[in-house]
Amino acid sequence: MKISDLATPALLLERGRLDANLANMSARATGLGVALRPHMKTTKSADIARLATAGQNGGITVSTLKEAAYFIANGFTDITYAVGISVGKLDQVAALRQDGARLTVLTDNAEVARGIAAHAEATGARFDVLIEIDTGDHRAGVAPDSRALMDIAEILDQAAGVDLRGVLTHAGHSYDCRSVAEIQTVAEAERAGAVLAAERLRAAGMACPVVSVGSTPTAVYARDLSGVTEMRPGVYMFNDVFQASIAACTLADIAVSVLATVTGHHPERGEILIDAGGLALSKDRSTAVGPRDVGYGLVAGLAVGLDGAELPELPELHVVRVSQEHGVVATAPGAGALPFAALPPGSRLRVLPNHACMTAAAYDCYHVVEGDEVIATWPRVNGW
Amino acid sequence: MKISDLATPALLLERGRLDANLANMSARATGLGVALRPHMKTTKSADIARLATAGQNGGITVSTLKEAAYFIANGFTDITYAVGISVGKLDQVAALRQDGARLTVLTDNAEVARGIAAHAEATGARFDVLIEIDTGDHRAGVAPDSRALMDIAEILDQAAGVDLRGVLTHAGHSYDCRSVAEIQTVAEAERAGAVLAAERLRAAGMACPVVSVGSTPTAVYARDLSGVTEMRPGVYMFNDVFQASIAACTLADIAVSVLATVTGHHPERGEILIDAGGLALSKDRSTAVGPRDVGYGLVAGLAVGLDGAELPELPELHVVRVSQEHGVVATAPGAGALPFAALPPGSRLRVLPNHACMTAAAYDCYHVVEGDEVIATWPRVNGW
Repeated sequence: MKISDLATPALLLERGRLDANLANMSARATGLGVALRPHMKTTKSADIARLATAGQNGGITVSTLKEAAYFIANGFTDITYAVGISVGKLDQVAALRQDGARLTVLTDNAEVARGIAAHAEATGARFDVLIEIDTGDHRAGVAPDSRALMDIAEILDQAAGVDLRGVLTHAGHSYDCRSVAEIQTVAEAERAGAVLAAERLRAAGMACPVVSVGSTPTAVYARDLSGVTEMRPGVYMFNDVFQASIAACTLADIAVSVLATVTGHHPERGEILIDAGGLALSKDRSTAVGPRDVGYGLVAGLAVGLDGAELPELPELHVVRVSQEHGVVATAPGAGALPFAALPPGSRLRVLPNHACMTAAAYDCYHVVEGDEVIATWPRVNGW
Repeated sequence: MKISDLATPALLLERGRLDANLANMSARATGLGVALRPHMKTTKSADIARLATAGQNGGITVSTLKEAAYFIANGFTDITYAVGISVGKLDQVAALRQDGARLTVLTDNAEVARGIAAHAEATGARFDVLIEIDTGDHRAGVAPDSRALMDIAEILDQAAGVDLRGVLTHAGHSYDCRSVAEIQTVAEAERAGAVLAAERLRAAGMACPVVSVGSTPTAVYARDLSGVTEMRPGVYMFNDVFQASIAACTLADIAVSVLATVTGHHPERGEILIDAGGLALSKDRSTAVGPRDVGYGLVAGLAVGLDGAELPELPELHVVRVSQEHGVVATAPGAGALPFAALPPGSRLRVLPNHACMTAAAYDCYHVVEGDEVIATWPRVNGW
């Protein structure tokens, strides 16, 4: 099957770029002396998880219990659920662990920690738990030097049914960086905060085998991860225009794109319409705050005509507006006139997403491509 | 089953509000002397489509061919696919029409019109086609007084395998209105433009049985639809905070909400964390430009404690930041301190969405509720 045979909108995954992204990050982890526990929240695909864990210890990270169940069903047995747990979800966690999978949960709250201990005592279930540390992102987590850290640790350490596994942090504020030097500063704060938290637990006599950090920008640029045991980047597998805007990748490293068809011409406004809108691209506007605002997506250089042949190079095109199933494409500021003749109705464009995690979530599968061949279709798991 | 038994995040649909919204719009269509062809792009549910077409002629509108296939499989036979068609999709359209469904397509482009005519001639298939009219939205469509309208009409009218059914317009710019008077002005422009286009076709000797208009705001406030045959609102079935912000509904008319669980407390920042983030709520920020910016969602008055009992009234709470699976909730500006004690970890909140169409698309089903009882689970169709 060729790309030109696909109905649109469709999500394309370039196998060569995926493989290169996976190999680069695996080599970085090895070079830094830490394990790679890839975060599957972006790709949500067992096919990709198998590739991403090659040469690593097989552990992965997930963002929902539905992902956890899917990956356990696909043979993965060492999974960290890296979103704060609530006590109401512990029955489901216990059920998922019943066949031997080590599904580790996370909290930053003493009341939740007491709830985990009580649940384990009441049901006889066992739980592996990490404490979430805030190393500057200010989303979740306790400060590494806080009293709260020790309070939570003591509750978990003293609970008969709980294995306190260690600490975990996510330097999500690396997304606010605008230079490699800034990312490196955040990466060091992420490392130092996680290690400080671990050292405090150990000084109090608790084991802390896991010191987990991770975001794609800090994973790409960290210079030293002394004291860290693993990192958990995720979006690096696909990359996106936002990651390129903060230099965490280049545009040529973006492995996913949305294939769209031109449905109309509006020369009076310098616009063409495509059949990929707010649902197919997502409403993520993360590039709005960066140096290169591409609207809802950047049209990739490679466009394909009605006959499947590659079109001549186009000026820079952005998806400037979306409604649910419509995208409006126009040239970037200063990029000149839109070449209507080169993009007749029925021709196709690829749109690189602002934020791959959000865009991919609208699709139930990847069309894996090499050149203009569709070489595989890989399912993904969505929802909760 | 009770709401408190549901895993979160989950999409709740209040049956009483849905029924009232459907009855109100059906009565409006009847009062205005037009048929109601509800747009199923918001709800994507056959259960809801059956309710929404009660007392009407049974016709519906869809935004994707996957929706069309789903609704045909569920017994609907009169369907308008209200997004510009591309020639590459005509084989699929023809296949969907094979068992007798009237699936009507749309174009605003002479080249596409020629493609439809050529496809019909080459394959022996027949197509019902509407011409899309731009009555001020400037997304798609030809101007009602344009030469292009007559060019496209002549191509379709002269094609042996094509039934030119009429004209269709969508006043999407009603979403930019900030008063009822503005919406009424847009509604009249929508009506007048569609009727002018129809009259030009008829003056040229072509039949034009369908004169189709529709957006929820204009459907709610149009004073007169003389010359129009049908309207196609969609989001009115659910409503959302954006529609309330332009007075197309009240907050009490919003029938869908996202049920979320409190996962953490951050009193040092005046924030609580919930397990509904950018995927569960969508990244739609349509309320950002209106009079009441609620971030990524407005926490509904009704919150439920650990024991399932309703909590005392809360100050106005917004979801002020999201990442993929995290939502950060804080009080609205001027609304005072966040009542942490009233919302312990594990308690639940309902979040009203900015834009129901985008939020609902992340879920594969609705949990239909009456009071705190879950009375049904209705599936929905997603993707392409």
